[in-house]
Amino acid sequence: MAATEYKPLLPVKQPVPSDIEIAQSVEPVHIAKIAEAVGLLPDEYDLYGTHKAKVKLSVRDRLAGAPDGKYVVVAGITPTPLGEGKSTTTIGLCQALGAYLKKKVLTCVRQPSQGPTFGIKGGAAGGGYSQVIPMEEMNLHLTGDIHAITAANNLLAAAIDVRMFHEASQSDEALFNRLCPADKQGKRKFATVMLRRLAKLGINKTDPDELTPEERREFARLDIDPASITWRRVIDTNDRFLRSITVGQGTEEKGATRSTGFDITVSSEIMAVLALATDLADMRERLGRMVVGNDRKGRPVTADDLGVGGALTVLMKDAIMPTLMQTLEQTPVLVHAGPFANIAHGNSSVVADQIGLKLVGPEGYVVTEVGGSHAQTHANPSPPGPSGLTPDCVVLVATVRALKMHGGGPPVVAGTPLHHDYTTENVDLVSKGCCNLARHIENARKYGVPVVVAINRFASDTDAELQAVKEAALAAGASDAVICAHHGFGGAGAVQLGEAVVEACSGTKPEFKFLYDVDLPIKEKIEIIAREMYHAAGVEYKPEAEAQIEKYTRMGFDKLPICMAKTQYSFSHDAALKGAPSGFILPIRDVRASVGAGFLYPLVGNMMTMPGLPTRPCFYDIDLDPVSGKVLGLS
Amino acid sequence: MAATEYKPLLPVKQPVPSDIEIAQSVEPVHIAKIAEAVGLLPDEYDLYGTHKAKVKLSVRDRLAGAPDGKYVVVAGITPTPLGEGKSTTTIGLCQALGAYLKKKVLTCVRQPSQGPTFGIKGGAAGGGYSQVIPMEEMNLHLTGDIHAITAANNLLAAAIDVRMFHEASQSDEALFNRLCPADKQGKRKFATVMLRRLAKLGINKTDPDELTPEERREFARLDIDPASITWRRVIDTNDRFLRSITVGQGTEEKGATRSTGFDITVSSEIMAVLALATDLADMRERLGRMVVGNDRKGRPVTADDLGVGGALTVLMKDAIMPTLMQTLEQTPVLVHAGPFANIAHGNSSVVADQIGLKLVGPEGYVVTEVGGSHAQTHANPSPPGPSGLTPDCVVLVATVRALKMHGGGPPVVAGTPLHHDYTTENVDLVSKGCCNLARHIENARKYGVPVVVAINRFASDTDAELQAVKEAALAAGASDAVICAHHGFGGAGAVQLGEAVVEACSGTKPEFKFLYDVDLPIKEKIEIIAREMYHAAGVEYKPEAEAQIEKYTRMGFDKLPICMAKTQYSFSHDAALKGAPSGFILPIRDVRASVGAGFLYPLVGNMMTMPGLPTRPCFYDIDLDPVSGKVLGLS
Repeated sequence: MAATEYKPLLPVKQPVPSDIEIAQSVEPVHIAKIAEAVGLLPDEYDLYGTHKAKVKLSVRDRLAGAPDGKYVVVAGITPTPLGEGKSTTTIGLCQALGAYLKKKVLTCVRQPSQGPTFGIKGGAAGGGYSQVIPMEEMNLHLTGDIHAITAANNLLAAAIDVRMFHEASQSDEALFNRLCPADKQGKRKFATVMLRRLAKLGINKTDPDELTPEERREFARLDIDPASITWRRVIDTNDRFLRSITVGQGTEEKGATRSTGFDITVSSEIMAVLALATDLADMRERLGRMVVGNDRKGRPVTADDLGVGGALTVLMKDAIMPTLMQTLEQTPVLVHAGPFANIAHGNSSVVADQIGLKLVGPEGYVVTEVGGSHAQTHANPSPPGPSGLTPDCVVLVATVRALKMHGGGPPVVAGTPLHHDYTTENVDLVSKGCCNLARHIENARKYGVPVVVAINRFASDTDAELQAVKEAALAAGASDAVICAHHGFGGAGAVQLGEAVVEACSGTKPEFKFLYDVDLPIKEKIEIIAREMYHAAGVEYKPEAEAQIEKYTRMGFDKLPICMAKTQYSFSHDAALKGAPSGFILPIRDVRASVGAGFLYPLVGNMMTMPGLPTRPCFYDIDLDPVSGKVLGLS
Repeated sequence: MAATEYKPLLPVKQPVPSDIEIAQSVEPVHIAKIAEAVGLLPDEYDLYGTHKAKVKLSVRDRLAGAPDGKYVVVAGITPTPLGEGKSTTTIGLCQALGAYLKKKVLTCVRQPSQGPTFGIKGGAAGGGYSQVIPMEEMNLHLTGDIHAITAANNLLAAAIDVRMFHEASQSDEALFNRLCPADKQGKRKFATVMLRRLAKLGINKTDPDELTPEERREFARLDIDPASITWRRVIDTNDRFLRSITVGQGTEEKGATRSTGFDITVSSEIMAVLALATDLADMRERLGRMVVGNDRKGRPVTADDLGVGGALTVLMKDAIMPTLMQTLEQTPVLVHAGPFANIAHGNSSVVADQIGLKLVGPEGYVVTEVGGSHAQTHANPSPPGPSGLTPDCVVLVATVRALKMHGGGPPVVAGTPLHHDYTTENVDLVSKGCCNLARHIENARKYGVPVVVAINRFASDTDAELQAVKEAALAAGASDAVICAHHGFGGAGAVQLGEAVVEACSGTKPEFKFLYDVDLPIKEKIEIIAREMYHAAGVEYKPEAEAQIEKYTRMGFDKLPICMAKTQYSFSHDAALKGAPSGFILPIRDVRASVGAGFLYPLVGNMMTMPGLPTRPCFYDIDLDPVSGKVLGLS
């Protein structure tokens, strides 16, 4: 491997040891040193041990007048189920920019879900010599943000069921009296959160005693239609037996049973809110207006109607601060949020990106990863979107392996050995598969942003194969295409990629072209995405989808942007359609709304929102050395 | 209120403001200052922000040779549903010892469950001018220990259901091959955790290929009897609709439905393990041997049989460190664990007590609270128990209000106004009720430990009433009985209590008398507790209890200590039997085992393990000031 003239700063070994072996072989520096280097003042972060710190939003205010750095978005081509190293490339690129090219750089990555850490996938802190460390901290509780989301999501869920339960057994008057109890002086008072419901109902009174009986009823009785409830419980564990459950089967719940289920925590709307909220006040509003279902008159019922928007915000108050960590080569990383790409936009947070752009300054780089299928669509609500941030450059991660699959190679299945087509030279297969890469480049170019292709080299790739990818990328309009080897060499393996990114960002800021006008009707927005991004011939709406579109339009949610919930394994709805398919009819099975987060998500096919565990989950290998306290067997 | 000669150091107001108002009016000092004052070296704790730190167990090792401090246990008489201020007294006593009497002191309290914080009860950081601050940190996520328990408990739950699912659809051979897959060289290997199962089965082989088909079957097929599963899922939310549920109703789960439910997280056996484990290695063993049910041959199935004991330990590795906080008067507090007193022993952790006793040294005091009904029984497995710690003195918290109830006063019901018997003088009622106090004193004396009664004064108590309590306490054998006013005055209101405690601890260490020999049969142990502590005339076992006693005896769990799961509202099984009842027959409905934690818990009546939410939960009042970031409305 002589692609780079830079000597690795890390003592790299071949073959590359396991991720945890590498991660534990490098002693992280005290996070206060990283914080100082990145320009944080001592009172702008809270230590969580010696290797993690929560960064306060006050730093963004302090630097509000300063110019932003360059904003680099890392996306990927349509991947195999094994993953093509998007996170690893994001981290390797930053190690190159920071530790070798001496640029100010900050990496923004998502917090991994704990579910897959113990399930089939392992952790998500990068890999090889391009990792965030300590990787066990990153993959486990981190600073508790996902746990806070679980707590908030489930408090809201409990509030829904118990409210229906209490409403079922109480008269309007009893209900009102319990909600607004008289104090010792016989005086009633509305809780602050209740004023929001009153305002929504158009009741302009602040003294409970002045409400008419009809107003008391309207205020106190949410009258939720159980069949309309879309809010589910969540848990950060891969527990497939919770996908579909019946609750309320205890005798004390008096037959008030209901069919519902649990999703994995990262798929909670509250995770999307965390990723999109710009500050505590904004988060408070978003959490309060989350819609859990509708009443029997068809009006949306929100978290604030249930009186719980403030409590949810209190549970989330620390989670809004991104967590500062470091790479193996001591460059700074902000770990924050991690919306489930299956049903949300799959990016790290707006606040992390904003803080990063201020910290690195105009000569610096913020590198952020986009999740799941959103490399294809860029139709995610952020960024760009409410954050106002638009990229200077897109890095598109490609592998020979995935392109061979798109060229017609045999299926790639996790846990079974790769077909020899993938381990021996087959330039023709690679070239055929480059149609997928080309489509991704075209799509990104539609937004007006330059694209650098990062070819993540695997050991079995040959020079001829790599060269074919490079040529195809340039032919399709990429600014540059670079072979990189950061997995085996750290930042030293991605220096050329770093240089290409610096070059791509050196011009005037590109003018970002939005794909659609957000004020268009729901169906028109869906159809623009289907046509422009997926090359579908048309869109077909199932009756459920039609009904939901009608309902959300009536409720006034039709002006929200669209985030397609679609398989990441194809441009189409059918994961088996590889390459660059076109002419298909895109089926929309249903449409859901994340009103608090601020987007609609049409469901293209069945989206899994709760992973399962295999016969032999990762947890078999995970243990603790009781003497050293070291974590063993994480991958 | 002139009971004390000490002037409060805090700017106390009357009437006493709300807990959160007081808590937020005092600026906590940096926790590093508290750590330094208590004798921790800088590398013996991890900061979690500026007001919390996790204390490493290494400090205990450093001070292993040093003598322990005095160990003071705070218990309470049989309370009213409003609570008699046991936590507040614990904290007030420590503020007195530390800030006024200038003793080295450390408070050990439990981490509050988040469920009640948003439900009916509010937080649990003390109250008035005797509080742990920041109270919002204490009542919310703290340093994530309870969240870690939720994650670990539910990973085990998921592992159980998914294992039964995979076993149902796979042949012995397929199951074995998936559990021990061949690597690229065709070589199989056991994961380390699998060696534990092999040892249990008496299979002394380390090469999977050497197992006979019969051994493979024995190893790979746990053959769990679904009806025997006692492991439930947990959540730290008051969600009554999860008490009884059916899981596995998705089509992908192929009809493998099962009736089960969620408990509140603090009732997880893993919480009890956390409280009782002495170090990481001990925790690893306890977690691994937790029993989740039995196989169809009646043999216990453990977490290690499921391969998950190591992963659970990894999830719990930071939780084993107690969290250092401070009181309103800057005395140090260790917040740790919080087993649900309904079904476990209800104490803070062994490690927190051990660390505290070393840190305060022979002239210092560790004050720890016992939860729930264990003031009555002292039959909890720890302390004393595996920790080897025995108290120098018991502080018994009593109130005029509770004693009036025991004397025959009308029922006290949360949320409804108190009967005027409780707010006007009635010495006769108080005196009658002192039978309850006397019984508690006698019970504690049976252990050979001196008792100091802390009479927690309320505004409406009269001098005559307080005097009656004092006299009754002394007559029943208390070393001293002191009226205190720490709620309204902080440590200044508990100085006399502090002096009484110092006096009670000044003699030679009392020799602790255990109530029973742990090697006795299960029924004998239960009957000793029932007779000696509760004054029951006999014990009646329901058929389920008989069956479980037979089963646990057969499994070899009969040598475990007993922790009675019984209402805290009476010495008997019947919460309505106030005072000092005797002659009743104690019914044992069922018997459960926490084999990992290390105790059996007979269920005396129905024990609630999942609280619900009222019509108007506390969360209505909880919000965040989006400008200052301050939490509003916590109580």
